[in-house]
Formats: sequence, structure tokens, C-alpha cells
Amino acid sequence: MNIAIIGGGGVIGQKLGRALVARGHLRGRDITRITLADVTAPTPIAGADVACVTCDMSDPSQLSSVITPDTDVIFLLAAIVSGHAEREFDTGIRVNLQGVLNVYEAARATGTCPVVVYSSSMAVYGGDVPDPITDLTYLNPQTSYGMQKAAGELLLTDFSRKGFVDGRGFRLPTISVRPGKANGAASSFMSSIIREPLNGQEAICPVGRDFLHYYLSPKRCVENLILGAEVETNALGPDRCMIMPGQMLSIGQMIDAMTEVCGPAPAKLIRWESQPEVEKIVKGWRFDLHPARALALGLRADDGFSDNVRFYVDEDLPPAA
Amino acid sequence: MNIAIIGGGGVIGQKLGRALVARGHLRGRDITRITLADVTAPTPIAGADVACVTCDMSDPSQLSSVITPDTDVIFLLAAIVSGHAEREFDTGIRVNLQGVLNVYEAARATGTCPVVVYSSSMAVYGGDVPDPITDLTYLNPQTSYGMQKAAGELLLTDFSRKGFVDGRGFRLPTISVRPGKANGAASSFMSSIIREPLNGQEAICPVGRDFLHYYLSPKRCVENLILGAEVETNALGPDRCMIMPGQMLSIGQMIDAMTEVCGPAPAKLIRWESQPEVEKIVKGWRFDLHPARALALGLRADDGFSDNVRFYVDEDLPPAA
Repeated sequence: MNIAIIGGGGVIGQKLGRALVARGHLRGRDITRITLADVTAPTPIAGADVACVTCDMSDPSQLSSVITPDTDVIFLLAAIVSGHAEREFDTGIRVNLQGVLNVYEAARATGTCPVVVYSSSMAVYGGDVPDPITDLTYLNPQTSYGMQKAAGELLLTDFSRKGFVDGRGFRLPTISVRPGKANGAASSFMSSIIREPLNGQEAICPVGRDFLHYYLSPKRCVENLILGAEVETNALGPDRCMIMPGQMLSIGQMIDAMTEVCGPAPAKLIRWESQPEVEKIVKGWRFDLHPARALALGLRADDGFSDNVRFYVDEDLPPAA
Repeated sequence: MNIAIIGGGGVIGQKLGRALVARGHLRGRDITRITLADVTAPTPIAGADVACVTCDMSDPSQLSSVITPDTDVIFLLAAIVSGHAEREFDTGIRVNLQGVLNVYEAARATGTCPVVVYSSSMAVYGGDVPDPITDLTYLNPQTSYGMQKAAGELLLTDFSRKGFVDGRGFRLPTISVRPGKANGAASSFMSSIIREPLNGQEAICPVGRDFLHYYLSPKRCVENLILGAEVETNALGPDRCMIMPGQMLSIGQMIDAMTEVCGPAPAKLIRWESQPEVEKIVKGWRFDLHPARALALGLRADDGFSDNVRFYVDEDLPPAA
């Protein structure tokens, strides 16, 4: 079992790599090789036969060392994030559309119909569609990032129908609590309002306590991606894309969960400050999602946001904090 | 008013060109130039300032003579048709996805936010979605052609949101009665079973009398495309794509309308012969469509299929027939 993780340098890619090393097998076979690929060299992961490769997927020739005829499973996690794709339209098209197409074509070129697990986003939803959002709700993205992810879904399903790849696409909830530093994503604050206070630092919350959104912990996301790779092809049906389960929560519920787990001090480090640019993007996103298809396949959400806080404290809290 | 028709050599492109010449104005201004562009040189149309250009839209450099800074309205009708895109996957991607993106980029490069009228298709619908199909039904294409058209829609709406183009996308019903010769489209028989008998020739019908589908005459389609270009931007809303009105009809109703207009002889020229390859594609298409948005904008269907037959006899019947 030879696995490629494109976006292997990112938060989810690294956790997925470590989880696969710990697990040792996938789809009934021992894992013999994991290739972590990213635009900058991924941090190495302890484990036999883990390779790190620098690869810009917008250049097809760079994919040849990542996807080879003996690649069995490809996790496609790499993307230009929402805020970045909104500021730099051309970069978003080049990576999130052309780059994704390049990955599918490289997978097709193996001639072995490898499994491709594609991370889409709930940003494919939005605008004038009725609640709740289901797997069959009209994709109506309100950002360039969402549009590019939706196009990647359509391509994945058609490449699968043609027998070129064995695709599984999951519309990821917003990941929280995401470790590390704030990034260019408009959703960045949805982790930093928890992460920074737990690290003993101030954080800015650009929306009110009642702002609702749909969340998943990095830990459960990785479990779901692995389950997504494991699912039998004939259980998927012709449409290969669906919502990954998450929880609908208000900012207030998240902060209360942090207080429940870690006491009242962290919440005092949150500064409330309106950011119209961020609000304009995130208020176009939907939050009431019903992930029926993925639940039927065994994927699941966290049990409560206090779990998300505990996962962060257990796995990701910097030693200094 | 400077107009480019990409796909100007096709049936709809030629009729649209002639209708615009006859009309003389669009969006409140006199038409000063019409450029008909297609992969093979379009048949010239009588009229001052009508140019014919050979252009493969999958090559961006070839678009520079078609879309210029003074282009006001672009009709994007060119496509690799469904059966062809199914047989030649790479050609479909190159033209229907990359080529469409090239057109949008060329329009964007003018810096003037030109109107782009994009012909999508009801082939974007299909699979496991409930009837009736509305403007907000999940796009679930069952063919590569449908997938490529759906991706073109997503791109059009996002290019419009960004202010790069002023897009309007219409999911065209199957055009019938289409003049000329049979083509590679799986829907080709939906015109030939009427056209060939009216021309005094045999035709093969690969589906039964009860097969339902959604149709529009070429004449009404052209009127709708022109209305689509005329619509004020603020009447469109953020999602620029919608169903173009048509009529749901059985094969039997179509043949009965032909008999009503032209007598019983033509229907006797139809040979009933199953074609599993064609059936497999067309049975994935949806037929019960509710085009609420386009109807509200003033677009409309034919009044009955006998009109479609009459339009063919009046406009398109070869002199020899």
C-alpha cells in the first residue's frame, strides 16, 4: 500500500501522515510507503519509508515523483485557502482548479484507477438555497475558493465514472482547533480565538457570539479521511462527493467549552473587533448541514466542542504555553 | 455595439447572427460589428460589418482576433457535443473546460466587463435528484459533457461576481427541429426523426414513443439568447445560470405534431431500432424542468411542437425536399 499525501506539509496532512504510520495498514494491506508532498518541503515524519517531496501541483511535471504507477491511494489536501484565492484570483485558478485537474490526470495516467480522497469544502454552498444544506443541495459558492472546490468535485465524479480514478470527495467543515499560526483563510479566526488564548496570547474575534458555523476537529477529520479511503467503491454511488460530518456551533458555545475545559482565564484574552472583509466572506457560508451520506458510511462529527478543546490541549499545545 | 459569436458556424450561431443583423440593435445600441468565430470558417452572413474568423478557443492566442477591447457582447455557443465528449474525454476537457476558461479570460482581459451569454445544457442535471428540476437543483451530470458545462457555469458566475465579465448562463433544452445533418450528439435523433422524414428520408428512432424529453425550437432559442443578452445585470442576481424554458414532450407527441402539420406520410419513414449506447446517455437526462428564473426574465418556450415543425418547414426545409 503506497500512499501519496498532496498537501502533506499542512496541518491535516501531517496529522494524517502520523496517523497512517501509527495504523500501519489501509484498505486491508500493509502500508509500505507514504509520500508527503507540498509546495515547501514537508516536515519529516518518523517512520520507515516516509518520503518528503517538494511539489507544486500546478506544474504537471512535478507530480511525476509523487504519483507513480504503484501509488494506490492519493489524499489531495493541498489548496490555496479562501482568503488567498479571493485576493489572488489567478493563483486560485492555477492551483485549486488546474492543479487539481493535474492530480486527477496524473492518477489517471497510472492506469490503475487509484483511490483519490479529495478535500472539498462547505464553501461550495451559499447564497439563495434553502436550509438545511444536504448532500444534494445546489452548489452555489460565494467565493472563488468555493467555486474552484466545486469544479474539482465535478471533475472527481466524472473521472470516477470514466474509471480513471476511484474518487471520494468530502466537503470539510471548518477545522477547529487548528494548531499553528493564523493563515490567509477567512476562517482563520475560528481556530485562533481558542488557540491563541490557550497559548496565553490575545486573539481577535471579528464576529459576534451568536455567529453560527460548522466545525470539526483535526483529529476527527483525519479519522474521517482514512474512513473515506477505506469505503468500498460500490457503497459510494455515482456521485462521489458529500458533506463530511461536523457540528453546528455558535462562537459563544465554543468559548464556553474552552472555559469548561481550561477555566475562565483564556476567554478574557479575546478581543471583539469587527473586520468587514472577513465578515463579508464568512457570512456567505452555510452552517446548518445534514451530512446523511457520510454518516451512513460511518464518518462522524466530534461529540461536543469540549472534545475539540481537549484534542488541542493533548496533541497541539506548544510546550511553552 | 460590437458582438462576437463563438460557435458562429453552428446552427444556432448562424441563426443568431442573421437575427442580430435583421434586428440591427442590442442593449439599446446599434450593432456596428458581428464577428462569427468557429473552428472551421463560418458560412458568411449577408450584412455590413459581419466578419468570419477561424478560431479554436482551446488556444488562447487564437481568441485575440475575436475578443478585443471593443467587444461588448460575447455569445459563447461553441462546444464539443455530448457523444463526442464521451468518446474523446481529452477533447472535451480541452474545449469545453479549458476553451471556455480561455474565453472568460479573454473577456476579462478587455478590462470592460463585457456581457457573456453562455450556452449551458440540461445535461448538467441527472442522477439521484428529485423531480421537478428547478434552477436550484443540484448539478449532478451523468456525462463528461454535462460535467464540463457545469464547471463552465461555476466559472461564469464567479467571473461575474469578481466583475471580470457580465455573465448569463442558460441551460439549453435539446434543440428540435435542428436543421442540417445528424451530428455526434447523443440527442441527434431528437431532431432527425422529424427532419429526415420532412426531407423525404428515412430516420431511425432509438427510443420508444413514450420517451420524454425537454425541447426548444432553434428560432425560440435564438430569441431567448438575445433576451438573455438584453437583461439588466441587476435583474440577474449573484447566480448567473438558469434553465432556458422548453417543453416536455414524448416522442409520440412530436410525431403527432408533424402529422398534424404535414400529413401522415413523413411518420411512415421512421424506423424504430434500439441503440443501447445512445439510450444509456439520454436516459440519464432529465425532462421535467421548471425554468422559473428565465420565465420571470421574459424568456419563453414554444407554444406547442407543431410550431417547432412549422418553424423548420418555413426556415430550414431544403429546396429539394
